[in-house]
Amino acid sequence: MGTENPAPHTPHIATEYQVMFFDTDCAGVVHNLAYLRIVETARTLLAEQMGWKLTEMGNTGIYPVLVRTEIDYKRPAVLGDQLVVRGALTRVERVRFHCGFEIVRKDASEVLVACEQVLALVQMPGGRPMRLPGDFGVRFAHLRA
Amino acid sequence: MGTENPAPHTPHIATEYQVMFFDTDCAGVVHNLAYLRIVETARTLLAEQMGWKLTEMGNTGIYPVLVRTEIDYKRPAVLGDQLVVRGALTRVERVRFHCGFEIVRKDASEVLVACEQVLALVQMPGGRPMRLPGDFGVRFAHLRA
Amino acid sequence: MGTENPAPHTPHIATEYQVMFFDTDCAGVVHNLAYLRIVETARTLLAEQMGWKLTEMGNTGIYPVLVRTEIDYKRPAVLGDQLVVRGALTRVERVRFHCGFEIVRKDASEVLVACEQVLALVQMPGGRPMRLPGDFGVRFAHLRA
Amino acid sequence: MGTENPAPHTPHIATEYQVMFFDTDCAGVVHNLAYLRIVETARTLLAEQMGWKLTEMGNTGIYPVLVRTEIDYKRPAVLGDQLVVRGALTRVERVRFHCGFEIVRKDASEVLVACEQVLALVQMPGGRPMRLPGDFGVRFAHLRA
Repeated sequence: MGTENPAPHTPHIATEYQVMFFDTDCAGVVHNLAYLRIVETARTLLAEQMGWKLTEMGNTGIYPVLVRTEIDYKRPAVLGDQLVVRGALTRVERVRFHCGFEIVRKDASEVLVACEQVLALVQMPGGRPMRLPGDFGVRFAHLRA
Repeated sequence: MGTENPAPHTPHIATEYQVMFFDTDCAGVVHNLAYLRIVETARTLLAEQMGWKLTEMGNTGIYPVLVRTEIDYKRPAVLGDQLVVRGALTRVERVRFHCGFEIVRKDASEVLVACEQVLALVQMPGGRPMRLPGDFGVRFAHLRA
Repeated sequence: MGTENPAPHTPHIATEYQVMFFDTDCAGVVHNLAYLRIVETARTLLAEQMGWKLTEMGNTGIYPVLVRTEIDYKRPAVLGDQLVVRGALTRVERVRFHCGFEIVRKDASEVLVACEQVLALVQMPGGRPMRLPGDFGVRFAHLRA
Repeated sequence: MGTENPAPHTPHIATEYQVMFFDTDCAGVVHNLAYLRIVETARTLLAEQMGWKLTEMGNTGIYPVLVRTEIDYKRPAVLGDQLVVRGALTRVERVRFHCGFEIVRKDASEVLVACEQVLALVQMPGGRPMRLPGDFGVRFAHLRA
């Protein structure tokens, strides 16, 4: 997904997370929904890098919203695991952008979960789609579809 | 808590719920947060009985908000359990009201979880507290503090 | 996805769900994680039809686990909406099976969310993959890859 | 609750957390369940200080489980807020211990949420209650009931 060695000027992020009880289920492993919550924290911080501040969205009503997720659950994490989520902007279109994420254990390289997400910018309430900022074409020319 | 045989004219409710994987944790039982989510569904339907429709709150901006919860976890539920949540309005003040809830298994009487919650009416955004409806004093005279 | 008019002998399901506060976020619509929790309830009941009882999994240690999700968020649901999740088994392999889900409003046909999930049977703890039951080849011959 | 200036030798903790979309609801503020998830992370790290390591619980089957929560929602947090959870062991009995938590904004002193929780040590599966470690009487003599 290009999340490991993103090109210069590519927004990317790495967040850490320790698995809590509420992330696990009675099969003894991390529940599928928990990984997506963990990815969302990384994605939100990645979006802040791209210009959408959490503390401003309430005022502007402009939100990057999720329109598609693909996620592969490859190997399970368990209670207490120290996880790292690596994410990066992977593609930019006119009204949509794509991000890729991988979850690994802090001390290991094998990918536990791989996730691709597509987002669009909307004006709330109403949900009218908006064009991405004009300078994205230049800043992220290397990521244009 | 008076949830089992509430007086006539006392708003009360019983909802059913089957325990799913996402409700459990790796200790093999239902996670403490899940019971509160299950209680919230019962409480929301109880609030509808009292006049606050879910589908209208977005327009009016008037919400009954939770100001206090007390919850006792007595016995664990497990994956697949068929639960019943019984709830009732238990006390009415000028700006606050109290609800009581009990969670049992469908085919048993022992209480797994007992919960008391205090709510207040607020106008959003801003969160200004509002007096409860004028007729509550009459309708729920038997529940006045 | 074939969820609307599945062939005879195709396991399928329709569950109903009313959107609660905890399903929404501050953009005013249902949060992306909530739809997946709602789909999971439908998927779990679909799995019960296929022979995996929730109340037996704890004893057998055999669980159908999620290995992949694709989900498209097409239109938002809001607080109080009465949703219907329609789901069906869509494909059977040797160790994996695929399910398709659509979420609509109860009184409307437009699809809010479409989701495809791939599951595998594993023995816990350890997570060793298991072949699907021998009679699946016959029962679901019309769904073989 | 004594969480601000705990005595020496009193296990205490402070964790930081930024409010994400999945923590909020359509009333525009942090949802009541989210605060309890945030408190749980602080409580789990506090329990690690007291000797119960997350990464060992799966092997020993000994878990500190929640038996009671009291939580007061005083003022709302919103999207993007930088929160601090301060927590401390507040009382030790023979088989139960009490913890107190307060949630504040990082740059402010007013308490948003105050929470008291009672825990007991149990052996899973089965849930048999266990006495707290023998040295607790000495280590936490100042916190005995």
